[in-house]
Amino acid sequence: MHFSRVALIGRYQDSGMDAPLRELAKVIEQAGIQVIIEKDTAYNTHIKEYHTGSLEQIGELADLAIVMGGDGTMLAAARSLCRYAVPLLGINHGRLGFITDIPIHQAVQAVEAVLEGKFTIEKRTLLEGSIIRDKKVLTSDLALNDIVLGRSERSGMIEVSVEYDGSHMYSQRSDGLIVSTPTGSTAYALSANGPIIHPAVDAFLLVPIAPQTLSYRPIAVPSSGTLTLTLTDTSRAGGRASVHFDMQTWTDLQTGDKIMITKASHKVQFLHPVGYSYFSTLRKKLSWNVMPSSID
Amino acid sequence: MHFSRVALIGRYQDSGMDAPLRELAKVIEQAGIQVIIEKDTAYNTHIKEYHTGSLEQIGELADLAIVMGGDGTMLAAARSLCRYAVPLLGINHGRLGFITDIPIHQAVQAVEAVLEGKFTIEKRTLLEGSIIRDKKVLTSDLALNDIVLGRSERSGMIEVSVEYDGSHMYSQRSDGLIVSTPTGSTAYALSANGPIIHPAVDAFLLVPIAPQTLSYRPIAVPSSGTLTLTLTDTSRAGGRASVHFDMQTWTDLQTGDKIMITKASHKVQFLHPVGYSYFSTLRKKLSWNVMPSSID
Amino acid sequence: MHFSRVALIGRYQDSGMDAPLRELAKVIEQAGIQVIIEKDTAYNTHIKEYHTGSLEQIGELADLAIVMGGDGTMLAAARSLCRYAVPLLGINHGRLGFITDIPIHQAVQAVEAVLEGKFTIEKRTLLEGSIIRDKKVLTSDLALNDIVLGRSERSGMIEVSVEYDGSHMYSQRSDGLIVSTPTGSTAYALSANGPIIHPAVDAFLLVPIAPQTLSYRPIAVPSSGTLTLTLTDTSRAGGRASVHFDMQTWTDLQTGDKIMITKASHKVQFLHPVGYSYFSTLRKKLSWNVMPSSID
Amino acid sequence: MHFSRVALIGRYQDSGMDAPLRELAKVIEQAGIQVIIEKDTAYNTHIKEYHTGSLEQIGELADLAIVMGGDGTMLAAARSLCRYAVPLLGINHGRLGFITDIPIHQAVQAVEAVLEGKFTIEKRTLLEGSIIRDKKVLTSDLALNDIVLGRSERSGMIEVSVEYDGSHMYSQRSDGLIVSTPTGSTAYALSANGPIIHPAVDAFLLVPIAPQTLSYRPIAVPSSGTLTLTLTDTSRAGGRASVHFDMQTWTDLQTGDKIMITKASHKVQFLHPVGYSYFSTLRKKLSWNVMPSSID
Repeated sequence: MHFSRVALIGRYQDSGMDAPLRELAKVIEQAGIQVIIEKDTAYNTHIKEYHTGSLEQIGELADLAIVMGGDGTMLAAARSLCRYAVPLLGINHGRLGFITDIPIHQAVQAVEAVLEGKFTIEKRTLLEGSIIRDKKVLTSDLALNDIVLGRSERSGMIEVSVEYDGSHMYSQRSDGLIVSTPTGSTAYALSANGPIIHPAVDAFLLVPIAPQTLSYRPIAVPSSGTLTLTLTDTSRAGGRASVHFDMQTWTDLQTGDKIMITKASHKVQFLHPVGYSYFSTLRKKLSWNVMPSSID
Repeated sequence: MHFSRVALIGRYQDSGMDAPLRELAKVIEQAGIQVIIEKDTAYNTHIKEYHTGSLEQIGELADLAIVMGGDGTMLAAARSLCRYAVPLLGINHGRLGFITDIPIHQAVQAVEAVLEGKFTIEKRTLLEGSIIRDKKVLTSDLALNDIVLGRSERSGMIEVSVEYDGSHMYSQRSDGLIVSTPTGSTAYALSANGPIIHPAVDAFLLVPIAPQTLSYRPIAVPSSGTLTLTLTDTSRAGGRASVHFDMQTWTDLQTGDKIMITKASHKVQFLHPVGYSYFSTLRKKLSWNVMPSSID
Repeated sequence: MHFSRVALIGRYQDSGMDAPLRELAKVIEQAGIQVIIEKDTAYNTHIKEYHTGSLEQIGELADLAIVMGGDGTMLAAARSLCRYAVPLLGINHGRLGFITDIPIHQAVQAVEAVLEGKFTIEKRTLLEGSIIRDKKVLTSDLALNDIVLGRSERSGMIEVSVEYDGSHMYSQRSDGLIVSTPTGSTAYALSANGPIIHPAVDAFLLVPIAPQTLSYRPIAVPSSGTLTLTLTDTSRAGGRASVHFDMQTWTDLQTGDKIMITKASHKVQFLHPVGYSYFSTLRKKLSWNVMPSSID
Repeated sequence: MHFSRVALIGRYQDSGMDAPLRELAKVIEQAGIQVIIEKDTAYNTHIKEYHTGSLEQIGELADLAIVMGGDGTMLAAARSLCRYAVPLLGINHGRLGFITDIPIHQAVQAVEAVLEGKFTIEKRTLLEGSIIRDKKVLTSDLALNDIVLGRSERSGMIEVSVEYDGSHMYSQRSDGLIVSTPTGSTAYALSANGPIIHPAVDAFLLVPIAPQTLSYRPIAVPSSGTLTLTLTDTSRAGGRASVHFDMQTWTDLQTGDKIMITKASHKVQFLHPVGYSYFSTLRKKLSWNVMPSSID
């Protein structure tokens, strides 16, 4: 893989973003590769010495996008760029950084290695969800982590009926339902007591939030099928519900609305430094399987 | 125990409440006992042939209150009447009915038995919670089930620091935190994966909602102490949070606000028919420990 | 699919097996298809009027095997017959019957329908596990549900280190570790608090038994890889451990022994009546997602 | 509290025990207090310069017992000494050390402070369990952590019926059932997914091991009552079961045997250094509620 144009996308709300972005831009330029700064990033960091471009232009022109920020920045970039098949490299800037797995102090070294072709590629599935009211699609969106159906009010349960490829799975009253990709299994679904699903498993994970039943269990189903969530009762929750894509955008729902969820037609590609280990990230970032300490 | 005045309190939003209430009123009257209908119940069910009274008057005058409705009706009656030490008898009217444990078709028979002195008494602890801002108490309220600190917005985590009798317990990011009585351990706390605490155990239960850590566990602490919840960060949740007493009333909170929770000074007394079994209610209402079926 | 020879395999420890087996044999014969009774089944039920054959002969000759008994009988048949690609039809004889999903009173009707070609086929993955000591394979076996590494003694923890395709996953002290197929996710792994994995998901599930850490979570990994479990410490458990294939056979292990687990080269085919629903089986047999009852 | 005789009890299997024990003995002697070394400890560590005594003699004579080792050593000392009301001080020697909470390098300083009267006292409840066959008590024993009913064989479920004060709680098939004190809630019960119960809560905790039902939940019941466990079926587990007191002693059981469990008549007293925090121990030793790290 040879790169001709590399884009830089930053979490521009963070102060002090300009210095590390400029440092990376210089590394890219010195490798004889053209730099494109995402235009909002450029505007907010006052970096004016490079070409700028919208996410669409980056999608059309760049063959690598380096994302600096937290997982939210990476999720947004992934959703915007996945249909252009631009691979993403995530640099963590002071946040949890589960999918932006390169620490900022290793950014230069990691980017240099990637530009020399030293990296591994990992494909991640996205969800595509459509909100349907009276048989019409109200809106559709993508999610790399999860699509979450929840109440809109401060309290009260919603009732949801779930089908997979037309076969009834279950009906449940709960605070909400998380449909997650394997990528999202280490995000909100994990907080709601879901299992971890390795990114290379072709499955969707369903995890309820505070279900009103003792006998629930999370379930993973093949990502080749279609999930249909029908909001069957919102009377305990003020008559409303909401749906979130990657916890960021949302739509107001009412009883009878449906959410149809399938695998998105495009995948996103993440680049990782050579030696990247998914399991090591689980252990380090989530303290997964830390044994009780005998150290005082 | 001899009863001179018995109050009837109904979930008046339910249609068809007047007939079963009138039936019970007749049973009470025939036992030579004065009937008081709670005034909103009387107004909404158009029952005009009996004395009516406010909850306060019922508290002062009645020596038994029969509550017909669901658990919400019972919770509200318990919170209003506990300081008057009026015992409560709960009749379930078409809802889950975990604490309103007498089915409606057995109401007459159960009330007759109770009026003849055939019953068992069970005391239940309530929580008293005070919201504190800048060292001033904004408001205080009681809860029979739980005090729930949660976000106000549709998504985003809040960060809470928890102390017990001045000793730091933990800090946690989550969707919220449930502090429940043993009574509440079979309500919302159970949905959030909490254990069951028998009502006679003197403990508060702390159960987080979707905590951002793998290593949480619910904890029960003695109800003799004081819990202090400090809202340390709401920036991920729109800068706000909310607190609920028995899922019904709520108060808006902001970063820095504290909730101090102790055992309320009064307990509520529930009457049960002779033969009542808490464990049987768990099995029947919650399908607790139902074994897999070999029936086809 | 046309059947020329159909085998009958029964759980011969059950009394009263001969009548329903004979009934099915007659149905098969009347359809002009040759019957083979598995020889131990024939011996124990005293059914002498049909050809008999060993499991190997059934594998070579039959193009359908009908298994009557419980899930254990079906697991054993699946492990023996998978390399012959003989499809299995499971009739439940008085047990839980999660994979033997046809109730006995519907057996005749179900078999008639299947012989007429009315059925759906479902493929299930098996595990192949090899026990390795000092770089030599001690033994290998198949499992349709799970391979379970556990202690041999009544109490005490074992310590296991787990690798996936050579990458370290984690080390853990526990009572044991369950590696399960999606089929096994509704068996022992479910008791140990694992999630449900739909049979069509290509994954292995790892669920620890009573792990000595708060921060574990079950994990599903792609079934294309190799899991290596190394027994790193047995000193707390009497110096020994044991490994089970589908809870039936076992091997004694010692510190340093490894278990290598891959997907078996053959899959087993289950036939189901038209209209079979996996989710319905979950709801009916496991009471999955049963809502609290408002029925008295 | 003034001490005249202080006993030293060591985990004598550990090598290198003699030096730290001698160091503590000297500290005690210098405070003008008589030292008694537990006789097996003295024998194994070759410490001959002090009085020695059996656990019974220590119970009769000492007014403080310092226990050096791991939690197992402390559990054994607590069970032996609780009826003598000798308070215990636990020094952790290279193990997890949840109840032996003083790290070895702080032992001298901690013991000096305790001998000067600087300590807090905490009482812990023990369980007393009796094994009953054909209405006769086979054996009885104490447990500070837990009484565990489990299978004796390598695999297979046992079926247990549980009563509390004569009221049926539930029947369940599982690998076993843990009845734990609050002290034991952070031991084996925690591995089996139980909640944490603060030591000052008067409750027993019941946590099943790998139960064959989706709808179980751990339950805490008042420690004033009597639990009766009846082994109703062992046919899936080779006809046998076993019961453990603090994971150390055990008895073989058969179908029909009962275990009656009550609060022991004596409590054990633990001394802690001033400033001891139970919650801090939870956080440090169990990594309870550790938040995901944003550190690289």
